[in-house]
Amino acid sequence: MTASARIGVTGLAVMGRNLARNFARNGFTVALHNRTEARTRELVDAFGHEGDFVPTGSARECVAALRRPRCLVVMVKAGEPTDDVLQEFAALLEPGDILVDGGNAHFEDTRRREAALREHGIHFVGTGISGGEEGALLGPSIMPGGSDASYEALGPLLERIAARAPDGAPCTAHMGPDGAGHFVKMVHNGIEYADMQLIAEAYDLLRKVAGLAPAEIAEVFRRWNQGRLDSYLIEITAQVLTHTDAETGRPFVDVVADRAEQKGTGRWTVQTALDLGVPVPGIAEAVFARSVSGHADLRAASRHLAGPGARALGGDAAAAFTDRVEQALYASKIVSYTQGFHEIAAGSGKYGWNIDLGRVAAIWRGGCIIRAAFLDRITRAYAAQPGLPSLLTDKGFATEIAAAQDDWRAVVATAATQGVPAPGFASALAYYDSLRAERLPAALTQGQRDYFGAHTYRRTDRDGVFHTLWAGDRTEAEG
Amino acid sequence: MTASARIGVTGLAVMGRNLARNFARNGFTVALHNRTEARTRELVDAFGHEGDFVPTGSARECVAALRRPRCLVVMVKAGEPTDDVLQEFAALLEPGDILVDGGNAHFEDTRRREAALREHGIHFVGTGISGGEEGALLGPSIMPGGSDASYEALGPLLERIAARAPDGAPCTAHMGPDGAGHFVKMVHNGIEYADMQLIAEAYDLLRKVAGLAPAEIAEVFRRWNQGRLDSYLIEITAQVLTHTDAETGRPFVDVVADRAEQKGTGRWTVQTALDLGVPVPGIAEAVFARSVSGHADLRAASRHLAGPGARALGGDAAAAFTDRVEQALYASKIVSYTQGFHEIAAGSGKYGWNIDLGRVAAIWRGGCIIRAAFLDRITRAYAAQPGLPSLLTDKGFATEIAAAQDDWRAVVATAATQGVPAPGFASALAYYDSLRAERLPAALTQGQRDYFGAHTYRRTDRDGVFHTLWAGDRTEAEG
Repeated sequence: MTASARIGVTGLAVMGRNLARNFARNGFTVALHNRTEARTRELVDAFGHEGDFVPTGSARECVAALRRPRCLVVMVKAGEPTDDVLQEFAALLEPGDILVDGGNAHFEDTRRREAALREHGIHFVGTGISGGEEGALLGPSIMPGGSDASYEALGPLLERIAARAPDGAPCTAHMGPDGAGHFVKMVHNGIEYADMQLIAEAYDLLRKVAGLAPAEIAEVFRRWNQGRLDSYLIEITAQVLTHTDAETGRPFVDVVADRAEQKGTGRWTVQTALDLGVPVPGIAEAVFARSVSGHADLRAASRHLAGPGARALGGDAAAAFTDRVEQALYASKIVSYTQGFHEIAAGSGKYGWNIDLGRVAAIWRGGCIIRAAFLDRITRAYAAQPGLPSLLTDKGFATEIAAAQDDWRAVVATAATQGVPAPGFASALAYYDSLRAERLPAALTQGQRDYFGAHTYRRTDRDGVFHTLWAGDRTEAEG
Repeated sequence: MTASARIGVTGLAVMGRNLARNFARNGFTVALHNRTEARTRELVDAFGHEGDFVPTGSARECVAALRRPRCLVVMVKAGEPTDDVLQEFAALLEPGDILVDGGNAHFEDTRRREAALREHGIHFVGTGISGGEEGALLGPSIMPGGSDASYEALGPLLERIAARAPDGAPCTAHMGPDGAGHFVKMVHNGIEYADMQLIAEAYDLLRKVAGLAPAEIAEVFRRWNQGRLDSYLIEITAQVLTHTDAETGRPFVDVVADRAEQKGTGRWTVQTALDLGVPVPGIAEAVFARSVSGHADLRAASRHLAGPGARALGGDAAAAFTDRVEQALYASKIVSYTQGFHEIAAGSGKYGWNIDLGRVAAIWRGGCIIRAAFLDRITRAYAAQPGLPSLLTDKGFATEIAAAQDDWRAVVATAATQGVPAPGFASALAYYDSLRAERLPAALTQGQRDYFGAHTYRRTDRDGVFHTLWAGDRTEAEG
């Protein structure tokens, strides 16, 4: 076998297959490998006309088909299967070769694998790939980690197959060393959870408070999609709400069981934020909202709990409320992204990744699930001020929230009063009000901690650590 | 050395020292050991008159001083120091002996250690001990895990040194095998975080919305402490708020820096709940609220963000609002405990611990930080219905929340409108409204997931898993 392929893909389930086709459609010769060879043949039979494929029957053959430095993308299940495949190929590769994991690995696993493969001189690139099956084929958002050298070799290929932002820029960039890529992808997914939860709350409020029907709400989302909320998720919300179930003639959203599932990256985002000491309550509320929805038995046992009756507004009041919900959704969305970017900044600091936050926003503008006009704004905010302490402190966003806040508050108050759960909106508002508070009641909390556990406290008026002798004469001692 | 001691304690920092004294004051002969012998001598010099102590100079001597089966309590720092000490003593002990870890270990570490020591025939007991320094001396709440056999030997000692509930019952009981004790202690701490956050929010609202001064709020808490909120934390809140800083003459709570610290068990509670798929948003909001308070730079950069001006109520309106806050606090507290007990039930199920939830509530009635009259209610709820799906479904709690809910909603709405952060109250209410909702917008979320990721959905009207061909003719296929 001549070493003719520019890149290889092993693991040809739907994501791997579509990624391989994407490379081939962009002019790269692609070596193909799969544990069971039938799948390789199927790909060539069905899509061989799309470009140059080199089907191979074994790992050794696959490696032999690759030009140096060899670039091989592994698209198998996260966890043990990934470790097995990496081990198999690492034994066949040479120093300077590049192994890419395009699955949804935990960034700690990626760090571990990168360190182990570096010992053998192999560049390991853990990369986030967002956009689902369609994105993999037509252009995903790609978030690679790994060494600078690996990006030099791999970057030009990724930039060809990635989605394009509205301004034509490819939606991929080097995120940083070792686990940086998978970390960014993890937070991307956490933000996606929050985005989806906020949209769900907006829908629920329009349905239960404004009294609109799904088709009417679809129209609202279509309108919103013309403005600053313009995004893929808002667009498909309108699509889903427009859809009618053929079997029953009822709105599709009413025949779908109201139990939202999850795969794990949202959970990881929250767990990691807790380790980093970064508050991401909005993302946490979104993850927990899915979890609540899935506890069918608990919900069944709780249906009798008391609550206010539904009082739909109707007419002009409904229209006015709809505009308020748009404000609440937009303000809460800014808060979600603020929390997500704070987590990326903290992870970057802890692991020494030096991640460019503006670049992250830029490569999410196309291809991925959270692609949105909004991300252009974030890109510009970080370009204007790379050391921005948080998105909320960007002048543009602060101004928009200032204009939105009365409506945002009214929507949260209405949800509470009318008994419609809006944990995402409420949590985002509480986060906003906490950050801007001159004084927080955390002073009381810390005072209690000193009382029962002698945990000490700091003072507002001078440096030092203090403890009050609570059980004694209550004088203050240096802690 | 004769084997005269009924129990030994190694690690004589303040917690270990007080625990050793507690054993001795209750008539047990206590072998003492510490890495540096000076501390052992100090204990005997200062407190030798309190009971029978056997100071020892080495691990070997300490083990030799213990009657069979030997019971040794390890009170050293969690993590590596604990592993080191366990290893040292395990080498000296015999099958049937009992090693107790009374530190704040993660339950997964306890599971690992229990399994390893079981190999050597040694019973390892990971136990939660709550009540701080004072509790260790005068009677803590003790939550031991480990084998039945270990509790048979150890239980009678623990029952003597534990706190007493108001009805005289000792505040300790066997929680279940291996990590059960440390798991229960972890969730205890998570609930403590939530309790403290809710109290902090109540204080903040009384201060900023009702316009009361700290000393006036102390009076309110004192009054509340006569009713259903009667608890240690409410009591010390009044104490802290009553205290005046001697140096400045200002209320103590105003000179304490408003940055609440944390040690890690609250974080673990949330991370573990995420792994278990149990929604604990109230505990998460409490952990994140502390985290927000500590981000001084971010807060400083956010002070200019827009918000409504403060409008204190004053007079009768303030009094009425104060009563509403009591309702909100009580209802939110029920929700926090509901979430915590849900997590214990889930952990018990996953690890096969068979934890008796009523017994957990019973042993928290005295000695620990969250001790409260309220826990009697929980004990009775589980006694009346051991398979209670959640505390919210207990008839008594449901009735109280039904009576509280109008005020609870009004308080959450007021906080949102007036710009006072109340993430705990708001999150608890959203959890309550989510559980009782006939339909959740999770149906839309799941529909979106099917749209962009072919994640499939279930239907409300028949079994099966389905996928809509969104990119095609939008017919429905079996998934």
